[in-house]
Amino acid sequence: MQEEKVFKDPVHKYIYVQDQTIWDLINTREFQRLRRIRQLGTSFLTFHGAEHSRFSHSLGVYEITRKIISQFERNQYDDWPAEERLLCLCAALLHDLGHGPFSHSIEKAFRMHHEDWTIRIVLGDTEVNEVLRRVSDDFPQRVAGVICKSYKEEIVVSLVSSQLDADRMDYLLRDAYFTGVNYGTFDLERILRVLRPYKGHIVVKESGMHAVEDYLMARYQMYWQVYFHPVTRSAEILLNKIFERAKGLYEDSYTFNFMLQPLQALFENRMKVHDYLALDEALMQTVLQFWSREADPILSDLCDRFLNRKLLKYMVLEPYEPYKLQRIIELMQKVDIDPASYMELDFPSDLAYDVYRPGQADEKLPILLYDGGRLTEITKKSEIVRSISSLQLGKHHVYYPEEWIGKLGLSGPEALLQLITD
Amino acid sequence: MQEEKVFKDPVHKYIYVQDQTIWDLINTREFQRLRRIRQLGTSFLTFHGAEHSRFSHSLGVYEITRKIISQFERNQYDDWPAEERLLCLCAALLHDLGHGPFSHSIEKAFRMHHEDWTIRIVLGDTEVNEVLRRVSDDFPQRVAGVICKSYKEEIVVSLVSSQLDADRMDYLLRDAYFTGVNYGTFDLERILRVLRPYKGHIVVKESGMHAVEDYLMARYQMYWQVYFHPVTRSAEILLNKIFERAKGLYEDSYTFNFMLQPLQALFENRMKVHDYLALDEALMQTVLQFWSREADPILSDLCDRFLNRKLLKYMVLEPYEPYKLQRIIELMQKVDIDPASYMELDFPSDLAYDVYRPGQADEKLPILLYDGGRLTEITKKSEIVRSISSLQLGKHHVYYPEEWIGKLGLSGPEALLQLITD
Amino acid sequence: MQEEKVFKDPVHKYIYVQDQTIWDLINTREFQRLRRIRQLGTSFLTFHGAEHSRFSHSLGVYEITRKIISQFERNQYDDWPAEERLLCLCAALLHDLGHGPFSHSIEKAFRMHHEDWTIRIVLGDTEVNEVLRRVSDDFPQRVAGVICKSYKEEIVVSLVSSQLDADRMDYLLRDAYFTGVNYGTFDLERILRVLRPYKGHIVVKESGMHAVEDYLMARYQMYWQVYFHPVTRSAEILLNKIFERAKGLYEDSYTFNFMLQPLQALFENRMKVHDYLALDEALMQTVLQFWSREADPILSDLCDRFLNRKLLKYMVLEPYEPYKLQRIIELMQKVDIDPASYMELDFPSDLAYDVYRPGQADEKLPILLYDGGRLTEITKKSEIVRSISSLQLGKHHVYYPEEWIGKLGLSGPEALLQLITD
Amino acid sequence: MQEEKVFKDPVHKYIYVQDQTIWDLINTREFQRLRRIRQLGTSFLTFHGAEHSRFSHSLGVYEITRKIISQFERNQYDDWPAEERLLCLCAALLHDLGHGPFSHSIEKAFRMHHEDWTIRIVLGDTEVNEVLRRVSDDFPQRVAGVICKSYKEEIVVSLVSSQLDADRMDYLLRDAYFTGVNYGTFDLERILRVLRPYKGHIVVKESGMHAVEDYLMARYQMYWQVYFHPVTRSAEILLNKIFERAKGLYEDSYTFNFMLQPLQALFENRMKVHDYLALDEALMQTVLQFWSREADPILSDLCDRFLNRKLLKYMVLEPYEPYKLQRIIELMQKVDIDPASYMELDFPSDLAYDVYRPGQADEKLPILLYDGGRLTEITKKSEIVRSISSLQLGKHHVYYPEEWIGKLGLSGPEALLQLITD
Repeated sequence: MQEEKVFKDPVHKYIYVQDQTIWDLINTREFQRLRRIRQLGTSFLTFHGAEHSRFSHSLGVYEITRKIISQFERNQYDDWPAEERLLCLCAALLHDLGHGPFSHSIEKAFRMHHEDWTIRIVLGDTEVNEVLRRVSDDFPQRVAGVICKSYKEEIVVSLVSSQLDADRMDYLLRDAYFTGVNYGTFDLERILRVLRPYKGHIVVKESGMHAVEDYLMARYQMYWQVYFHPVTRSAEILLNKIFERAKGLYEDSYTFNFMLQPLQALFENRMKVHDYLALDEALMQTVLQFWSREADPILSDLCDRFLNRKLLKYMVLEPYEPYKLQRIIELMQKVDIDPASYMELDFPSDLAYDVYRPGQADEKLPILLYDGGRLTEITKKSEIVRSISSLQLGKHHVYYPEEWIGKLGLSGPEALLQLITD
Repeated sequence: MQEEKVFKDPVHKYIYVQDQTIWDLINTREFQRLRRIRQLGTSFLTFHGAEHSRFSHSLGVYEITRKIISQFERNQYDDWPAEERLLCLCAALLHDLGHGPFSHSIEKAFRMHHEDWTIRIVLGDTEVNEVLRRVSDDFPQRVAGVICKSYKEEIVVSLVSSQLDADRMDYLLRDAYFTGVNYGTFDLERILRVLRPYKGHIVVKESGMHAVEDYLMARYQMYWQVYFHPVTRSAEILLNKIFERAKGLYEDSYTFNFMLQPLQALFENRMKVHDYLALDEALMQTVLQFWSREADPILSDLCDRFLNRKLLKYMVLEPYEPYKLQRIIELMQKVDIDPASYMELDFPSDLAYDVYRPGQADEKLPILLYDGGRLTEITKKSEIVRSISSLQLGKHHVYYPEEWIGKLGLSGPEALLQLITD
Repeated sequence: MQEEKVFKDPVHKYIYVQDQTIWDLINTREFQRLRRIRQLGTSFLTFHGAEHSRFSHSLGVYEITRKIISQFERNQYDDWPAEERLLCLCAALLHDLGHGPFSHSIEKAFRMHHEDWTIRIVLGDTEVNEVLRRVSDDFPQRVAGVICKSYKEEIVVSLVSSQLDADRMDYLLRDAYFTGVNYGTFDLERILRVLRPYKGHIVVKESGMHAVEDYLMARYQMYWQVYFHPVTRSAEILLNKIFERAKGLYEDSYTFNFMLQPLQALFENRMKVHDYLALDEALMQTVLQFWSREADPILSDLCDRFLNRKLLKYMVLEPYEPYKLQRIIELMQKVDIDPASYMELDFPSDLAYDVYRPGQADEKLPILLYDGGRLTEITKKSEIVRSISSLQLGKHHVYYPEEWIGKLGLSGPEALLQLITD
Repeated sequence: MQEEKVFKDPVHKYIYVQDQTIWDLINTREFQRLRRIRQLGTSFLTFHGAEHSRFSHSLGVYEITRKIISQFERNQYDDWPAEERLLCLCAALLHDLGHGPFSHSIEKAFRMHHEDWTIRIVLGDTEVNEVLRRVSDDFPQRVAGVICKSYKEEIVVSLVSSQLDADRMDYLLRDAYFTGVNYGTFDLERILRVLRPYKGHIVVKESGMHAVEDYLMARYQMYWQVYFHPVTRSAEILLNKIFERAKGLYEDSYTFNFMLQPLQALFENRMKVHDYLALDEALMQTVLQFWSREADPILSDLCDRFLNRKLLKYMVLEPYEPYKLQRIIELMQKVDIDPASYMELDFPSDLAYDVYRPGQADEKLPILLYDGGRLTEITKKSEIVRSISSLQLGKHHVYYPEEWIGKLGLSGPEALLQLITD
């Protein structure tokens, strides 16, 4: 590029673009579509500032990756494979390309994974693919490899996907900024300063251990304060119920007053890449609006609740015992509320989120400390990290419609909890 | 209310709700709809952080109003009409209720005003109206009066609508925060401290003059750096062209492959309140997506450009002379580009925005300084404000499609400008 | 007071003074003297921004206390003893009044305690005492009682002195602000919102537990990143060596070229309140400057080192074993360096700082969570707090003059460590 | 240097040292002495946060210069003389080296200029000189040349000293940060991005004009809100009176109970470099403390006032007419107050501060805009800058001791003003 270009960004101040390939990728229709997918799904119903998109997050992940590599180059570290620079930047920029609207809820209902869609978009007949192929014929394949973690060089994968990767660093800072909570703040500049390439890994200078502790505490706090917030979970559950209901109606040959083509493809499980790309949050919210006037009383009611933020209420069932759930189902059916559509037992720590837990199935590359001689996994040195890693914090929440209490003739949530526990 | 409730807000840290009426208004479907209208319309295409909604801005205006009144009450100022508190808070919260999707562009195309819609929603058969009527029968009417500035008490009107009102204070801070620019920052806490109720006006203690200068400079900078940004204007122009084209097609009985009911009502100029409320930005973006595949080549092309951010380019015509515009039109028609659909002459200072200009038609209540004895209009005392007030800063921009240059066989924008000016 | 007064403060934006007594206390010479005592002692030699004084911290503690009480009053909590308001504010403002120059080092050398001096100033023949007596005859005594924690009402004491008091909250935020580190940041506004007076205690609503965790993590990080920073410790040790040396010389009837009266009183252990008040950091630095030209070579060298930041170096002795220290002493004496003046073994976690450790001798009032029914000490509920509380983190550092290595004919610190450990 | 070193800085986050020469300069005793000189002199008596030293400011000026040069190098601009890098960095770091304690007041009383002392220290027998000579024999001379603006390359001088230099940029941001006012904030990163070396000048890309306007408004606001604050001026006047009084007494052979050598040299106008270096603010405050107990009643009273912040009061004389001053003098003498020691007429805009005024005697290098072809001085293009440049804002303040009013038997300041004006 003749001259570097910048984007103004509230989190990193500026985002610097120095490669024509990056510039061209940003201007593809597939990347621009990320403007119509919110970064935090339904969180805006809990934290009204959380209206930012995956577009801005993706730029942020790219920028952090660019800063890390630029530090490696400035210091001329031998262990950094300089020829992988553009590959890292492209993978960082595109890693979330396949996210659909309200991913958590829709993926659960339709058994999809956004990672698969990212790969399909990168390798398919798309503008993104065309831009990548201009670099080299196998470049789309290599980018896809980094994103799905099959690429041979661990050091490249770990920049984009590990316990201390550009993705996490950006989203913690960004989500904290837009929600307005303090918890996600940590000293990014310091962490960038203590990262080193070393024998195929990205490692942390031991003197930076406290900065990493601070980052992990930020992550812990964000999970429990923001990402697992019960009001946000309530909205996700509602959306999931909507998708399940609509899918059920479709399979039962219900005639929708309002239906759009990409949705039909979704119901029939025959989505092509271009169908999927049409499925953004604007479309989904428009569908919800029209469905709030559908003939099916449950579908229309659920949509109305979501749009107008009349969410399900929740109570804590601690200690949880199976008989309580049974009791709840009976008490709902007794007053003609369909538990399948209006009730959910939720235990957030069950979810495959990534609070740091070495040894678990879905393990991410661990954080290694480097003291000039040896590498040590961080829990070996930090009691704080050790204690965060083993925490089992979740609570069993039951979500239910507020009117249930009245229908049972009860005075309030305490009476309800009493009735269930007795 | 039993206990005050709070919203976490990135600009004001917390927003405090202490009245049941305010709480109920926030939970109406008409107010929740503001989540689906962006505060800055098309600015997110220039500043990717600017994805915040009118919902969060409206809460912010309410909160600043609450803080001002609370200061007045704490200091027990005689000139403050304590009985108007709830009225001020409701008007502050609801003042933007009638905003439609991408207001600037749609209002111009269809000759509507969002202020009229605000009044219609407040007075119509809506949840908002019902909540307000619970206060008293004439309360909706009084709230509407404050919003349309016909209410008899100037002091009430001026809190919500003047040169130094809660509306401007919130949007400058909020838009600066979400775009990430520094310019809109000023010392809100200091300004709140120097406001006083005085003989039916809100006035400023003279010792606070510099703080007001700083606020007005922030406003000046935000207009030129953000609100009038040529890329944002380009997107607004494109949207306006889309609405004009679609309206023209509809009037010519073109058969749309995709049409939604509320839009039809808009084209036929017979929108009811509930039609208008259905017209949010999600719906509008969905329409644009489907129209990008319409048979009409101009409509589909314009929609594709907007969605995928292939905006019109611009050049400055300074000094502007009418023959240049004529020349542009000829040069477009020569290569079969329709100027009505693809070209626009824009002079932003023409717009009825509110850089402070006392004496103009659309004049807002001026800023009065109070030195313990007399009131003085601020331009009498501040040279800085005087100089900002008289600035005529706009430039004539011409917007055009990039491919025009190639079709004319020219090498680039300089050659084009040469050809027009010769 | 006729009208509230404000101080501009970088941490709290403004500090509000609403009582004549507070205003008068701030204007006493004893309180103004705090401008000449740095809040963080020698930390400015590590973090150059840390040049803020105990004056600004004391205003900050007052302001946080004022905010807490104001919240209690606004919510009209029954359990808040409203008549104690002014007492709390005065104790908060004055709690650090007795700090001397570089307190840690000077107190250790001369076996003094700043708390005792605070009490002597409050009760002595001072302007502060006079202002307090205007409230009532026993008011100075009551203020002193709160500061030395003997006051009968625990709730009053705990505002100023507990694990979650206004003192700690201000210094964490303030020290983080002025050093520029991120670690000390936590959500003050949220913590203030969840504090409640309850049966003679200040308690925390259980929903605020995560905010308290965040505050305790900030504290933990600040201790290890800032307060125990080895460079800061090195400067403190140097100062302590200077005081010890000068005291020794004085006792040995050495004739100082430069001596000031208050210092003489200090050496002779016969300081009166007005001597102590004369002993500020300006005076102490002036003494150090003149002593850097004293005839005694050790005293002049130590002073020169402190003034020109030629501090002692340090190495870690882990695992620590007594023979190592013995070896160090021998290796110093061998090349004529006096270990008593130039060497120190330091183990920071030994110090009586207040990382949260329930059950220890110097225990502060614990943090109690309130769930609407019962009170629970926070470690019972929070695993994070539990894990911080039991941490034993300190390392054994040995401080030594850099030239020692050369005198031993060694190549560098590694060789030195080798020699000691062998 | 083997590895870059960093300082944590609250304004720039980190300050990066990459040259051994810079590192060695920072560690000289002359540079360390700047820790004992406050950046804003007496401002800490108005804004209690303003306790930061010239040490931290000097590091900041260095860092901004380093960032500018690093940008020039990254973009490989032809017009940047790469061989001047180290010279620029050293001059930036050392430009304030000769500042004495409370420079404004002491320089006025003793007719000194800190610039002269900077040159004397750089060229004299000092550690700084020794470090510079290691670069080359004429290097100290070249550094001195840049600082006193006689160096032949304007581009080098203008980085350190012009209307838009690293000095101003750092002090505005730093003073805003430590005082806590918002006014001094501007977008440093954006300004750095639009600076270019061009034909021997540092110029600004025209697209950055608004950013420069914002910077100049910040400067204007800081002058009137902070630097010319009447309380700060009052303290400076008091200090100046103290120095004048002491000098007078010394010349009249008054025997001081307390006198220190460097001060004597000052009074006798025979200060050598090492005397001057001994004269820091710690020493000066210690002197003031002892002089507050001198036999001379005026000297001891003035010192007591300064130390305990019992400053002179002020009133505005607008319009100013000579007879008023005459009247004041008479009214003071009438009640035995010595006007020479207790009264001052002050008109801050008279002072040689550097609000941007092209064409004035002390003119700094102007700001040039570059549009790709021509250079234009900024007032030709920006109405805002034009209007700031021509402002004549000062007011005539008269400073006087508060007790004067009582001695005249008047009720308050209004009555006093009345009496003078009549």
